[in-house]
Amino acid sequence: MTLNAADDRFRTLILQALPPEVLRPAEARYLEEPRGRWAGNAGLIAAPRSTDEVAALVRLAAQHKVAIVPYGGGTGLVGGQIAPDGPAPLLLSLERMTAIRAVYPEENVMVAEAGAILADVQAAAAGADRLFPLSLAAEGTARIGGNLATNAGGTGVLRYGNARDLCLGLEAVLPDGTVWHGLSRLRKDNTGYDLRNLLIGSEGTLGVITAAALKLWPLPRATGTALMAVASPQAALKLLAMARDMLGDGVSAFELMHRQGFEFLTETLPDVRQPFAEPPEWTVLIDLGLPARQSASGALEELFGAALEAGLVDDGLIAQSEAQAAEFWSVREHIPEANRRIGSVSSHDISVPLSAIPEFIERGDAIIAGLGAFRINCFGHVGDGNLHYNVFPAPGRTRQDHVEQRDDIKRAVHDLVHELGGSVSAEHGIGRLKVGDLQRYGDPVKLAAMRAIKDALDPLGIMNPGAVLPARG
Amino acid sequence: MTLNAADDRFRTLILQALPPEVLRPAEARYLEEPRGRWAGNAGLIAAPRSTDEVAALVRLAAQHKVAIVPYGGGTGLVGGQIAPDGPAPLLLSLERMTAIRAVYPEENVMVAEAGAILADVQAAAAGADRLFPLSLAAEGTARIGGNLATNAGGTGVLRYGNARDLCLGLEAVLPDGTVWHGLSRLRKDNTGYDLRNLLIGSEGTLGVITAAALKLWPLPRATGTALMAVASPQAALKLLAMARDMLGDGVSAFELMHRQGFEFLTETLPDVRQPFAEPPEWTVLIDLGLPARQSASGALEELFGAALEAGLVDDGLIAQSEAQAAEFWSVREHIPEANRRIGSVSSHDISVPLSAIPEFIERGDAIIAGLGAFRINCFGHVGDGNLHYNVFPAPGRTRQDHVEQRDDIKRAVHDLVHELGGSVSAEHGIGRLKVGDLQRYGDPVKLAAMRAIKDALDPLGIMNPGAVLPARG
Repeated sequence: MTLNAADDRFRTLILQALPPEVLRPAEARYLEEPRGRWAGNAGLIAAPRSTDEVAALVRLAAQHKVAIVPYGGGTGLVGGQIAPDGPAPLLLSLERMTAIRAVYPEENVMVAEAGAILADVQAAAAGADRLFPLSLAAEGTARIGGNLATNAGGTGVLRYGNARDLCLGLEAVLPDGTVWHGLSRLRKDNTGYDLRNLLIGSEGTLGVITAAALKLWPLPRATGTALMAVASPQAALKLLAMARDMLGDGVSAFELMHRQGFEFLTETLPDVRQPFAEPPEWTVLIDLGLPARQSASGALEELFGAALEAGLVDDGLIAQSEAQAAEFWSVREHIPEANRRIGSVSSHDISVPLSAIPEFIERGDAIIAGLGAFRINCFGHVGDGNLHYNVFPAPGRTRQDHVEQRDDIKRAVHDLVHELGGSVSAEHGIGRLKVGDLQRYGDPVKLAAMRAIKDALDPLGIMNPGAVLPARG
Repeated sequence: MTLNAADDRFRTLILQALPPEVLRPAEARYLEEPRGRWAGNAGLIAAPRSTDEVAALVRLAAQHKVAIVPYGGGTGLVGGQIAPDGPAPLLLSLERMTAIRAVYPEENVMVAEAGAILADVQAAAAGADRLFPLSLAAEGTARIGGNLATNAGGTGVLRYGNARDLCLGLEAVLPDGTVWHGLSRLRKDNTGYDLRNLLIGSEGTLGVITAAALKLWPLPRATGTALMAVASPQAALKLLAMARDMLGDGVSAFELMHRQGFEFLTETLPDVRQPFAEPPEWTVLIDLGLPARQSASGALEELFGAALEAGLVDDGLIAQSEAQAAEFWSVREHIPEANRRIGSVSSHDISVPLSAIPEFIERGDAIIAGLGAFRINCFGHVGDGNLHYNVFPAPGRTRQDHVEQRDDIKRAVHDLVHELGGSVSAEHGIGRLKVGDLQRYGDPVKLAAMRAIKDALDPLGIMNPGAVLPARG
């Protein structure tokens, strides 16, 4: 199936069907991505203002076999939003569909359009005395439609789940331009196949999400934050089990950080205030969110005491104010920026079964040491089994010095992950970066089923071709 | 596509490929279902002992275009396990695949084969000091594969979610006889389309689930149960909001019961001990499950006090022992049996948005009153918006007296549910009972996508034909 470029002729067809404001000038920002790995390619850029306009554009694209690249906040880390090759596509940005259509505080539901920025969704929930718990570094730029299309993770997954767990219903334009009106506010609905979860995580290859019904939660009434120095990743897992045993789902975040991250902060972002005079080898950042009748700092003290007695921790800081809690989180949140400034040779967003984490870290470190002199910054959402395991050059060297080793490092880490029953893309998705990894490590029966589904719902192959699955020739 | 019967010739083919023990004598139990509505039809009954044997049977069925009806515990309420017509199918029972393959307490994960009885799965979790929270009336007979295939609900949904929310991974035989090895123990895995959730809830029409990786939870350390008399369904919803605000996810069940249910118990099951001398018009049954450091009965007393002050409740009983808690639950759990003994004219497993519950009950009651003299037993999982809204004959009459009104009643209730943005199958699924309802009320774009997916994954139409979607002619 050869696709056609979104050329002047296609532009004319769009302008016959839709007002000229739907098209946007080609700005560089649409064709760049955060890793700086690809330069995008777009014949036309459209920013429709309504679901009807999205549907009209998709129908035209289907009629004329023009590829569509759906575009949210552009913050994806695997190139799902960037088409580097093939006939120039229509880039379809949801940036004008930003309405919070409705909030139902008594149902703990909100309906938001796909272009709403994640931070605005959070704020709209807070304005109704509710929590929308999806939280990630790019939340000031990322849009909820993209978060859903990529099944985003972040720091709230331990307690609240991934993006798919936060969604009750979708409105979406399918590849033939029809509109699925699936904005259900229902907690239970067993009427047919789970189209919602099929679209979530399909990275724009099966349709364009235009709006979503999102789950909200009561705001936790008592919150607390602590940093605890743990002896090892194994001790971190035991501390987590202890915390959940004592506090149940009150544990709302549990992040592991290696000393390397603190050292990168010292090196590249000296203004970020560091809580420990001497950073421990392994630190966990714990957030609690408890209902009204409990004391979060009391609970953290009790946890620290029990963990000290069990030999799991040897130092700890409990935030005494919201400002101090923000300071603790600031350390965690600046680590990705410090990483960027150092410049990684190879970054890995992996997950393994929880009990395999210590083995993964131990064997991973040995494998990397065998490949040369590198620094490893391992951090992430340890309660979800999700680590960002990033490999950096030794001091005085740069990533450019290791370009030729990059694929070997990536392969070695991913082989280990696969051997341990893990995933080579825990939360970022496949995009274009990991299409080859998915073909290599994915279950062949699942891959065949994915291809059959893709061909059934998008027989022309116009939706984000080359993302998730290889483009058809 | 005409299918062939599972006849003697097909039997011979099976016996050439597999040991004779795989086949089972035709027993009546396989061809009956709890509603007594259909008589099943099966050419052959097979009970494979391994995933490989399941795959071999499915491959044979695909080669010879023989329909397969996957069979779990046989407890489904919508006829998904019963093929009343068409060429006699191969009934494929998972009853011999009952192993708990592994328990990983430190990961809160268990891997169970599809034929494991739900109560055995719960017991295996408890044996590892963990909770598997799926809980429903048929748990002593239902099998976990069927629970997943139908995305079962039950009383734990409010806190823990539906069956799909309790599953991390699947092993399944697809309609071409290939095996998807997807028994992931990962909490985060963004590698391609969500085949797991597509199979969950597809009621055996897209493949046969053979095993599942299930999520476990720490056992709640402090549990408590109470009955509270509420003024109205609206007051019940306010009480729920208050409870969640005070106790967060400590609220693990919240069931609404109308007085009619208590009266049916008095009439048909007088041995069931009733806690109230005079049953209130509306009662809620509340279960708490709290971590170690809290007192559940203290929390229930506090909740009752606050609710009394707010005018939401006017009577209440807090269980003083586990025996008394079991007594409270026994009332709730015997209501379906009392209903069966009375004999409903029409039963409805519906859900509506939470805030629409009072309107649904008020308008529903008025509509039924307009259709004749009936008794309504409305009860269910009000925190999920899921009500069992069942219509019974007046005293002295029987369901047979109203056979001709049955479709009108059902239609009127379902029309109202649809108008309020609800679902005509909240937790039981579509099966064969509600295929027409789904065609009538379902979104046409979703239906078209479902058909495309069905045809793509099961082009011969052998998997449970006539369930969920109409069988192809």
